[in-house]
Amino acid sequence: MFIVLEGLDGAGTTTQTRLLSAHLRQWGFETWTTREPSAGPFGKAARSVIEGDETLPPAGLALGFAADRIHHMFKPDGIEEMLARGVWVITDRYVLSSLAYQSAQGLDLNWLIEINRAAPTPDVTVFLDTSVRVCLERIQARGENLEDKFHQRTALLNTRRQYLHALSSGLFVGKLVTADGNGSKADVLQQILRGMAEELQTDLGVFGGMLSQPPRGLG
Amino acid sequence: MFIVLEGLDGAGTTTQTRLLSAHLRQWGFETWTTREPSAGPFGKAARSVIEGDETLPPAGLALGFAADRIHHMFKPDGIEEMLARGVWVITDRYVLSSLAYQSAQGLDLNWLIEINRAAPTPDVTVFLDTSVRVCLERIQARGENLEDKFHQRTALLNTRRQYLHALSSGLFVGKLVTADGNGSKADVLQQILRGMAEELQTDLGVFGGMLSQPPRGLG
Repeated sequence: MFIVLEGLDGAGTTTQTRLLSAHLRQWGFETWTTREPSAGPFGKAARSVIEGDETLPPAGLALGFAADRIHHMFKPDGIEEMLARGVWVITDRYVLSSLAYQSAQGLDLNWLIEINRAAPTPDVTVFLDTSVRVCLERIQARGENLEDKFHQRTALLNTRRQYLHALSSGLFVGKLVTADGNGSKADVLQQILRGMAEELQTDLGVFGGMLSQPPRGLG
Repeated sequence: MFIVLEGLDGAGTTTQTRLLSAHLRQWGFETWTTREPSAGPFGKAARSVIEGDETLPPAGLALGFAADRIHHMFKPDGIEEMLARGVWVITDRYVLSSLAYQSAQGLDLNWLIEINRAAPTPDVTVFLDTSVRVCLERIQARGENLEDKFHQRTALLNTRRQYLHALSSGLFVGKLVTADGNGSKADVLQQILRGMAEELQTDLGVFGGMLSQPPRGLG
């Protein structure tokens, strides 16, 4: 099962990736959590741009992310191999992040879809719908520079609109689970589990949503 | 003036990039020679794939090349800045190499065109049309592994067909100069200069083609 977590900066994707993995492991599933950009050579190159060490226009960065995505998927011990071994892969961001963030920077959504055509669609996309106000509070709480709060607020609102637009295309989504990301960590996790149970139409206890601990003998 | 040299492996693009630059400098032009993949972070990542240190399917490598191309173009002291300073930029390989080599690997030409849409078209493309036989001899002469000569011959023939197909689209070409790449180095350079004079419809002595040395007082 290939699960992707998506949402605005500050939406909680990193936290929920960790919590969802821990929950699945408690129930005896083998998981691998990873994130984009990856730790591979193209991912490192993309990160050097994000961190301001390299200069690259948005179109170039979009291509770099797309290259990293294919590497991350098909390298030895990459996503594809993990899935083939029966491991549940949970990725913090995937194609939709590119579609949302980079169309918010002015790139054409159809071009972004086209350059990502070689990226397989996940089984489940979990979209953490967190209000821009809460995202900004969390970004501030983790001590990041919020010099121009007005500017950042506008950018997040724009990216949120692009996320919803990209999600509505249904491409690169698979089954969609939306969770209100404004609540407590435990609350958001419960919503994700309930949403997955519904979307996967499964009675598996792991997605029961009400149990926070696996039954005796598991885990 | 942004000049690109293209051709099969062994066609002589690296040698003629050097010779054309030296010729232009003798005539007092400032030149910058460069090549793809570049020495930047995405170029290094692409090179690690070519050299077998990393695994990446053709579509991922095509995206990596395209990202490197944009970085190489728009980075500080990159192609765009050099051109703005009046420097003549001569690049050993550019978009057409991706179109030819990667469609020969089975990728869709239209997709390759699409992912390279952000790459500016050069002023002049010099295509060194060197026979596959001569290319193979040169590859062998430089001591490279030619384990499976039959296989390599087939691959080069296929890539040559893809080059001609890509050139016929006219995209990413600019003015096209074709030179028979089978002759001596000096002979090929003379053909390039004559072709440039014709295509650029210029009387500039530098492209006279018959002079191998600049007139007194230049250079």
